[in-house]
Amino acid sequence: MFARESLRGLRKNVSNVISKHGRAFSNDEQRRTFSLSEVAKHTDARHGVWTTYEDGVYDLTDFIEQHPGGKKMIMLAAGSRLDPYWNIHDFHKRDDIVKILSEFRIGSLRKEKIKASTGLNLDDPYSRDPKRHPAYTIYCNKPFLAEPPLGLLGHSLITPTEVFYIRNHMPVPLIDKDGYKLEISVKGVSTKLTFEDLRQYKKRTIVATLQCAGNRCNEMAAVNREDFVDVGGGPATISTAQWGGVLLRDVLESVGITDSVVEREGYKHVRLEGLDQDLSGTKYEVSIPIHIAMSPTGDVMLAYEMNGKELPRDHGYPVRCLVPGVAGARSVKWLGRVSLSKQKSQSMWQQTAYKGVPPCANQKTVDLQLAEDIHELPVTSVICHPEEGETLLREEKEVTISGYAWSGGGRGIPYGKAWAWSLWELTAPLPAHGDRMEIICKAVDSSFNVQPDTVAPIYNYRGYLCNAWHRVNVTLGEKRL
Amino acid sequence: MFARESLRGLRKNVSNVISKHGRAFSNDEQRRTFSLSEVAKHTDARHGVWTTYEDGVYDLTDFIEQHPGGKKMIMLAAGSRLDPYWNIHDFHKRDDIVKILSEFRIGSLRKEKIKASTGLNLDDPYSRDPKRHPAYTIYCNKPFLAEPPLGLLGHSLITPTEVFYIRNHMPVPLIDKDGYKLEISVKGVSTKLTFEDLRQYKKRTIVATLQCAGNRCNEMAAVNREDFVDVGGGPATISTAQWGGVLLRDVLESVGITDSVVEREGYKHVRLEGLDQDLSGTKYEVSIPIHIAMSPTGDVMLAYEMNGKELPRDHGYPVRCLVPGVAGARSVKWLGRVSLSKQKSQSMWQQTAYKGVPPCANQKTVDLQLAEDIHELPVTSVICHPEEGETLLREEKEVTISGYAWSGGGRGIPYGKAWAWSLWELTAPLPAHGDRMEIICKAVDSSFNVQPDTVAPIYNYRGYLCNAWHRVNVTLGEKRL
Repeated sequence: MFARESLRGLRKNVSNVISKHGRAFSNDEQRRTFSLSEVAKHTDARHGVWTTYEDGVYDLTDFIEQHPGGKKMIMLAAGSRLDPYWNIHDFHKRDDIVKILSEFRIGSLRKEKIKASTGLNLDDPYSRDPKRHPAYTIYCNKPFLAEPPLGLLGHSLITPTEVFYIRNHMPVPLIDKDGYKLEISVKGVSTKLTFEDLRQYKKRTIVATLQCAGNRCNEMAAVNREDFVDVGGGPATISTAQWGGVLLRDVLESVGITDSVVEREGYKHVRLEGLDQDLSGTKYEVSIPIHIAMSPTGDVMLAYEMNGKELPRDHGYPVRCLVPGVAGARSVKWLGRVSLSKQKSQSMWQQTAYKGVPPCANQKTVDLQLAEDIHELPVTSVICHPEEGETLLREEKEVTISGYAWSGGGRGIPYGKAWAWSLWELTAPLPAHGDRMEIICKAVDSSFNVQPDTVAPIYNYRGYLCNAWHRVNVTLGEKRL
Repeated sequence: MFARESLRGLRKNVSNVISKHGRAFSNDEQRRTFSLSEVAKHTDARHGVWTTYEDGVYDLTDFIEQHPGGKKMIMLAAGSRLDPYWNIHDFHKRDDIVKILSEFRIGSLRKEKIKASTGLNLDDPYSRDPKRHPAYTIYCNKPFLAEPPLGLLGHSLITPTEVFYIRNHMPVPLIDKDGYKLEISVKGVSTKLTFEDLRQYKKRTIVATLQCAGNRCNEMAAVNREDFVDVGGGPATISTAQWGGVLLRDVLESVGITDSVVEREGYKHVRLEGLDQDLSGTKYEVSIPIHIAMSPTGDVMLAYEMNGKELPRDHGYPVRCLVPGVAGARSVKWLGRVSLSKQKSQSMWQQTAYKGVPPCANQKTVDLQLAEDIHELPVTSVICHPEEGETLLREEKEVTISGYAWSGGGRGIPYGKAWAWSLWELTAPLPAHGDRMEIICKAVDSSFNVQPDTVAPIYNYRGYLCNAWHRVNVTLGEKRL
């Protein structure tokens, strides 16, 4: 794991390590191949600490102590694959960090040892990702993390599908709708539903906002603490669509799952597994509390339409889960399997990602398995127009400020069970004097929760849950002739 | 209505008015009696503006323009009774304000015109209120508003019944359990349930915290804005009990109200009427959204036990409503009538009290009927020990800080559907230097809503919903010999 400030020092240290040990391998050496069982023998200082990432084999022996996330964390991948850990902590997949890793490459994995069933291109598992709209601000390409221009968001309740924010965790799977099957697994008994089967249930449509738990994390980055892990993301990793599909509750009831069965069997969670996977075949999975899934008012949906059309590949084609009012991470895309369980998902996504931690915790000290899951999101609001750094013309005499406000759990702005954001607008006079102005917005939700005044007291090193007052600084100027 | 700063100026103005018009009436004149129909003729400057309060008749002609809450508000009571308005805005009932009113008395209401059926003592409607524990901090005697010592709260999950906070709106009614009947009214059809009838339903017990919407309003008073209406109340108008009773949902179902009936008939609200009333026979009533009442997880209860014993008179004997997770005002005491409706209660309590308003609003500018009802309460926390102004002994080297944290809507601290508060405790070292220390606490609820940093941005003139970080200032000192 790489924190921001540490990265600069790290590059220097890596150069030292490489020159000291002469570990800049030749092309010939990089063509050496190893089996996973050979890699597995290298788990300590005596035998060297090796790991693999995608199709590469790396000797990290001299890097272990430099790891900004701590020796303990990186040693989890000693003798095995980095991929599952980097899938969770995927800020590692930034170009600069991948380049540091490449310095330690000693060869390649024998290709037959990589799970062939994934259908992924071994040289670039992301090669089949779809083309995206050029308007996106891209924070990570592989996996794709991007947001629309903020100015686009404040204009309409529905975000155009083409620029709806995207936060993928792995390559986008290529799925044939005709061959698609959703597995519902209860007590070891599987029911498989085709796309056409799903369409037989009563169709529902709801307008719901999805928000990434890391929306506005750039504002936490600006607190500028050394331990910050910069995943990237501005105030536009939030979007709204009209979703069409069927209620998960209806589907569960059709295979015999009623409230009384849930109570009798002691089920507490619904696990949701995607069809997206990495080279090792590890799939994305999280879970949600079963009372949310079964609630008549929770509106948890198996969605197959977005804004009146079939889902685009980036948004879960052909079927995704939609869990309104909670962190986007629970709305599993490319849904492959739904299972009932007494425990939460045991996946690393559930156990170590999307956790709420206090300001005092950092990646070395935190015990993520004890930390609370991020589920319902707190009240937030953002100014979409004007934008930071914009110049407002004094002769206009007034400015129209607009933006969005939203709260999790259906706690609408200002009132009611509401899954979609509220757009707001205010026209205010420009001040007669001064050449700068700070504009602040803050929202109150239907439970009268408010946004905190400032970011620092809600800081957490992963940049989740940033919901302080939103502030935009603009300049007041004269018209240029 | 009387705001804090205005009151001082007001006393002076009242003296001027009285001396100018010679309106200090003699005892003889105060013995004059009027009928309500005579009072009703006096509604403008030409005929004089008269009103009544309890058994008194008052000529407010020259006071109208002085009213701190505005002429428009006080004119609502012109030619009729002040009581219904003062019941809502019952900060008027403070001794100093009652004294100002008394200066304008011109006589008494003919007793036969006062609703005799209330059973209240005309000279002192509060004469039958119960005796209370001497530990209470009393903010208002009639109606009774009081909180326990803060230090008592942090020690146990359950607040002792004898010091559970009390916020009455009118005199405590004297009810005979054997004659008690609860009326359930649906589409004009009434079902009357005796106490024994209620006990036939399945008994439930839950531990739930009740909090007054105005808890911590003293901190809003400290913002010291001129428009503040000081009802009074510290950080201890919150308490927790184990409640025993039956689910409102079960009772409604037994009279034929199911989810589908609710949907078919378009019911949106459940009105809850108390048996407490003023001299004019006006009863306390509010309403709650029907989906809360019908929710299998909402736990709305008709409670007849508090901490294992029958309800004390101050807490609603023999039966009260308990609506966990929302403002205490919705948990109607001395419950007399439950009715289903498409509209909210039309009572002034529902329409003008317990509303959330923004910092910019004051009693002259606000339109309370447009303001949002206070229902679910936001996350809060308070330091119960040490208390403001306490001296900590430096030689102790550390301090154990303790308090409560709570959030509305079942959004527990830290996690889960939870109606009761969480008690917390932290032992921290005392600083080696300095003679003063500020201790701050702040909580995060299970939806990751947090408390705002400061009070001013959430200020409202009635002092509701104060949930900023709680701050306690202590002195560090040496042991006195």
